[in-house]
Amino acid sequence: MIVVMKVGSPEAEIERINSEFEDWGLTPEKIVGKHKVVIGLVGDTAALDPLQIEEISPWIEQVLRVERPYKRASREFRHGEASEVIVSTPEGPVIFGEHHPVAIVAGPCSVENEQMIVETAKRVKAAGAKFLRGGAYKPRTSPYSFQGHGESALDLLAAARDASGLGIITEVMDTADVEKVGEVADVLQIGARNMQNFPLLKKVGAQDKPVLLKRGMSATIEEWLMASEYVLAAGNPNVILCERGIRAFDRQYARNTLDLAAIPVLRELTHLPIMIDPSHGTGRAEYVPTMAMAAIAAGCDALMIEVHPNPAKALSDGPQSLTPERFDRLMTELSAIGKAVNRWQEPATVLA
Amino acid sequence: MIVVMKVGSPEAEIERINSEFEDWGLTPEKIVGKHKVVIGLVGDTAALDPLQIEEISPWIEQVLRVERPYKRASREFRHGEASEVIVSTPEGPVIFGEHHPVAIVAGPCSVENEQMIVETAKRVKAAGAKFLRGGAYKPRTSPYSFQGHGESALDLLAAARDASGLGIITEVMDTADVEKVGEVADVLQIGARNMQNFPLLKKVGAQDKPVLLKRGMSATIEEWLMASEYVLAAGNPNVILCERGIRAFDRQYARNTLDLAAIPVLRELTHLPIMIDPSHGTGRAEYVPTMAMAAIAAGCDALMIEVHPNPAKALSDGPQSLTPERFDRLMTELSAIGKAVNRWQEPATVLA
Amino acid sequence: MIVVMKVGSPEAEIERINSEFEDWGLTPEKIVGKHKVVIGLVGDTAALDPLQIEEISPWIEQVLRVERPYKRASREFRHGEASEVIVSTPEGPVIFGEHHPVAIVAGPCSVENEQMIVETAKRVKAAGAKFLRGGAYKPRTSPYSFQGHGESALDLLAAARDASGLGIITEVMDTADVEKVGEVADVLQIGARNMQNFPLLKKVGAQDKPVLLKRGMSATIEEWLMASEYVLAAGNPNVILCERGIRAFDRQYARNTLDLAAIPVLRELTHLPIMIDPSHGTGRAEYVPTMAMAAIAAGCDALMIEVHPNPAKALSDGPQSLTPERFDRLMTELSAIGKAVNRWQEPATVLA
Amino acid sequence: MIVVMKVGSPEAEIERINSEFEDWGLTPEKIVGKHKVVIGLVGDTAALDPLQIEEISPWIEQVLRVERPYKRASREFRHGEASEVIVSTPEGPVIFGEHHPVAIVAGPCSVENEQMIVETAKRVKAAGAKFLRGGAYKPRTSPYSFQGHGESALDLLAAARDASGLGIITEVMDTADVEKVGEVADVLQIGARNMQNFPLLKKVGAQDKPVLLKRGMSATIEEWLMASEYVLAAGNPNVILCERGIRAFDRQYARNTLDLAAIPVLRELTHLPIMIDPSHGTGRAEYVPTMAMAAIAAGCDALMIEVHPNPAKALSDGPQSLTPERFDRLMTELSAIGKAVNRWQEPATVLA
Repeated sequence: MIVVMKVGSPEAEIERINSEFEDWGLTPEKIVGKHKVVIGLVGDTAALDPLQIEEISPWIEQVLRVERPYKRASREFRHGEASEVIVSTPEGPVIFGEHHPVAIVAGPCSVENEQMIVETAKRVKAAGAKFLRGGAYKPRTSPYSFQGHGESALDLLAAARDASGLGIITEVMDTADVEKVGEVADVLQIGARNMQNFPLLKKVGAQDKPVLLKRGMSATIEEWLMASEYVLAAGNPNVILCERGIRAFDRQYARNTLDLAAIPVLRELTHLPIMIDPSHGTGRAEYVPTMAMAAIAAGCDALMIEVHPNPAKALSDGPQSLTPERFDRLMTELSAIGKAVNRWQEPATVLA
Repeated sequence: MIVVMKVGSPEAEIERINSEFEDWGLTPEKIVGKHKVVIGLVGDTAALDPLQIEEISPWIEQVLRVERPYKRASREFRHGEASEVIVSTPEGPVIFGEHHPVAIVAGPCSVENEQMIVETAKRVKAAGAKFLRGGAYKPRTSPYSFQGHGESALDLLAAARDASGLGIITEVMDTADVEKVGEVADVLQIGARNMQNFPLLKKVGAQDKPVLLKRGMSATIEEWLMASEYVLAAGNPNVILCERGIRAFDRQYARNTLDLAAIPVLRELTHLPIMIDPSHGTGRAEYVPTMAMAAIAAGCDALMIEVHPNPAKALSDGPQSLTPERFDRLMTELSAIGKAVNRWQEPATVLA
Repeated sequence: MIVVMKVGSPEAEIERINSEFEDWGLTPEKIVGKHKVVIGLVGDTAALDPLQIEEISPWIEQVLRVERPYKRASREFRHGEASEVIVSTPEGPVIFGEHHPVAIVAGPCSVENEQMIVETAKRVKAAGAKFLRGGAYKPRTSPYSFQGHGESALDLLAAARDASGLGIITEVMDTADVEKVGEVADVLQIGARNMQNFPLLKKVGAQDKPVLLKRGMSATIEEWLMASEYVLAAGNPNVILCERGIRAFDRQYARNTLDLAAIPVLRELTHLPIMIDPSHGTGRAEYVPTMAMAAIAAGCDALMIEVHPNPAKALSDGPQSLTPERFDRLMTELSAIGKAVNRWQEPATVLA
Repeated sequence: MIVVMKVGSPEAEIERINSEFEDWGLTPEKIVGKHKVVIGLVGDTAALDPLQIEEISPWIEQVLRVERPYKRASREFRHGEASEVIVSTPEGPVIFGEHHPVAIVAGPCSVENEQMIVETAKRVKAAGAKFLRGGAYKPRTSPYSFQGHGESALDLLAAARDASGLGIITEVMDTADVEKVGEVADVLQIGARNMQNFPLLKKVGAQDKPVLLKRGMSATIEEWLMASEYVLAAGNPNVILCERGIRAFDRQYARNTLDLAAIPVLRELTHLPIMIDPSHGTGRAEYVPTMAMAAIAAGCDALMIEVHPNPAKALSDGPQSLTPERFDRLMTELSAIGKAVNRWQEPATVLA
């Protein structure tokens, strides 16, 4: 932690501050610059909050953090190695990680009825997906919009799991539902709007199921990693990060701004696997294939794609869903890029 | 709802679409423009989702909403009249509304111990505040930061209420805590990070306590009003909106961008009372007085100000807290503006 | 300047870097922290670019600036005193500065014809304005929109100046027009889109007319002050800063986000006077009065308000223009706030 | 154009408005909805400004544009076909367009001296680049930073052109410099800060050299296309669009947010070729290769990459420049993606 003093700070005040730091068990080192004095704090500063330190004296101009505020999520925590998040599915474990093929998650925004979810599951499985997505509980901007079928939809997801062999990823929105959702889901999804729902993060952190943590619409990379730290610190080491578009100033065409540069940034900062959701990330089916291809070229570990048997009749998120036919074609397109970067596994192996 | 067709849309497709709209009980009216055909939908369109309509045909270019998506929150719902949200306090009801004096809410970020919260309550009461704010449950970016004293802090708030006569406003973060918090709070606060925590909105909507709904960091005005609609639709008509700074591109000095223009915008759109929080809105104690004055000049109905007996020792949010002395002075400054716009009640009247 | 080294940086590399800094005439001071080494650079670092320093070694994690990158614009440059920018007008000098009454600038977006500009000038003068604004050269998003009458409009501004006694503020967009505009304008306006048009900044910096520098739509406070530094460094000490709304994520109601907290932030950082433009800042006439009142309460030194004799027939920016009648009323509203903060001069004195 | 009337608009007012529209030569068509009346305007509405129409009556709630505001830049203008921008270079014409190989532009941020620019040109040519980039005039945030060598650097670019056979792309910042720069440049670059410098756009629109138009930091897609329309309307049909990162809320790691979804969005809206600049788009050399790969997968027509023989000694933009060695490797990596999408031409053909 670096403490920058204002121009003209009295020597006595600087001494008072330094002795306060010493009381905290830190070793302050003073650098006298041309105009300003700067104090470097040596010791265990990771848990200190720069905002609190600023309050020690009105002569403090700013406090700069040198250490990162997250630990378990940091790449250093695993000595530079990538994590492998292993998820069990009816057809065996699937590994999310940077040394493994890109894992494909596909399915509708929400679970509408048994036939549609089972049919979709079989279709996306045949095309090469390993996981089915589908919402039982849906966060909707309007209270008058379809809110998901809730508990009964969980049963339908279980049926689709049995029928297809796919793993299940579904969202949980309330601490009260975590156990119930965990009985069906292979991965618990925390949606973008709940990225900083801290009671929920603590609760999923106490489960033994992997967690998919979507980035909040206006979350910085650091806030996102701090949110993952809540899950990790609660004892659950299996977190997958999912970028799904951030909010910028232009929403006329693409509804969100898909931040693909998050991939190389996260690679440097964290060991956690990275998923990209181009469906929410753009909000428009016609932009999804292009951005899915770009995501693989940029090195993502997994993709989440919305697929609906009949987007025109979807109860939610229709405009960003692909038809099963378009998804089939997309998988062929993706395989070309995936092979070019050595991150592709042919679905053929699934049939074996 | 207005449906804009792409250039060159086949006549047969337009007819097909129109007959689909008729099946929905709507009356489509076709306007043939120079380049494009536009369809106006007459009937009950408020519950329709433009995104769903887009899915009816690939020939649809865009769907424009003419009706507002919220009802109970709209100014029209109350025939243009402002709401009065009446909150009971130990010293009688306080009214939030545009024809009433500006209500002042003050207190520390979090409840630290009995002495500090009781002392702060008495001080801000003496200066003219009507409500004490103070967090029992604190949303913190880091899992390693102080998370609030939780349930035990609720008792301390109750003690401060008794000792000072102030009403209590405190945040609830988890559906599981709503009843417990409601036993102490006179107003249930939903924080910015939970603005779209829909299970929580539904739950506080089912309580008989007024709700203070903070705007999410990147929430549009419309999304914010839709969030209030969740509470209203659940049966609770007593919602106060609170602007607390949005996230923009420059956070070097002020940590958030306080959107004071939200005041005239909301005045036009909704009947709900409007509170401004310049403490979170700027993140820096030195900017708070100026922005509090501006907020009153802009017509806010209430102000929320962080006050801490010793900001340098605060367990959270120190840099944005005023000392009680600075708060006393601020109240004098505010009274000059408040009187100039006829929205000020002297604390003297409280003593009567 | 503070140089933070990566974890595990070799001692030899740190020595190499330090000897490079010494070659530059700096004195590096090394702090060995628990995990990281930090180097404080003592000496004349103001002209150094942190980005360049990062390139010295791949072991450098980040470089933090401690000094501000602007000098002449800084409050320290004038030893904490505010500047007074004195502008000559036909009726004598008007002073912009924090110890003077709020100066009002009013007029149409663009100069349309002699009658309208002279009439508007007289009306706003009578209401208390000291300056007439009006564009001869107009930056328009579309090449097909009215681009201003150019040179001939400058003559009309001169006529309005003579007829009303008001000073003239008008925009210059091209280095080739600076002298020509300077013959008529009492203040040269640099528009938001040209805030970082550096050849233009250098050119107006070489004139002997005061410069009104509008903030770019997505300019940080620091970039804005650096732009003012271009003018100051070119020899022109008379710069007025004008906040006119920044671009954020919600443009459905107010077209821009008026950043009033820029007032206290700038007060701390710079000695330059501060103007607020609520007309562009909100883009809607109905929000202008409220935000003008808030701006005065927040401590601005000047206001720029669009007034048009017939907004419905305006060739540009109609929706954000007030009628002369509404402007008259606004001046009365503003006087109440202006008097409350001791920053108001009655127009009566003008009649003397 | 669609005009939405407020609830309760008087019938007489609607008739008055309609007769005004008829005076303008338009045919208004009225739709009477459940709550509101909507007027569709048939006729030549492309040049109308929605903001002006709003001013016709206080009973107008909003005006929605149905036509796009740009013509020459629209995909429809060329009947759905992509443009080919053909640029002459010493070694023959290079075509930018969606049915051609990705064109690579590389070189330093600024031209520092003859040796460095000639050496860099030869190196990037050998690796497969077709164009050399390099600034003679540099837009710099600080007046104290290196501003480019100006006119003398143009001579060095000419020398590098002769020595390498590469085409030259360099920025022009001032209308006064356009002819001079045009004598050396094969493509005139308009930088992000000048995207809405309208006099400059008109001037380059009057040249017979192709124009590279960078997207402004906070420009919407529509504003960017309108800026291109200035060049096209001035008579120059050869415009290449370049995305270089937009400004969002998180600049801690990547300095800008590279908006790759602009590629599929622009593909749909315009016929103009699309270039991506991952160097400015991320601001960090270590993120450039990944984002360059993603850009090709997303379908860009050209890439602009900063390469500097010794980034640590660069006079500007060092941290985002690749070394020539890293650039060589990048070209190999790009070829794998480029071939996977059939957009790659081996540099071998250059040797022929």
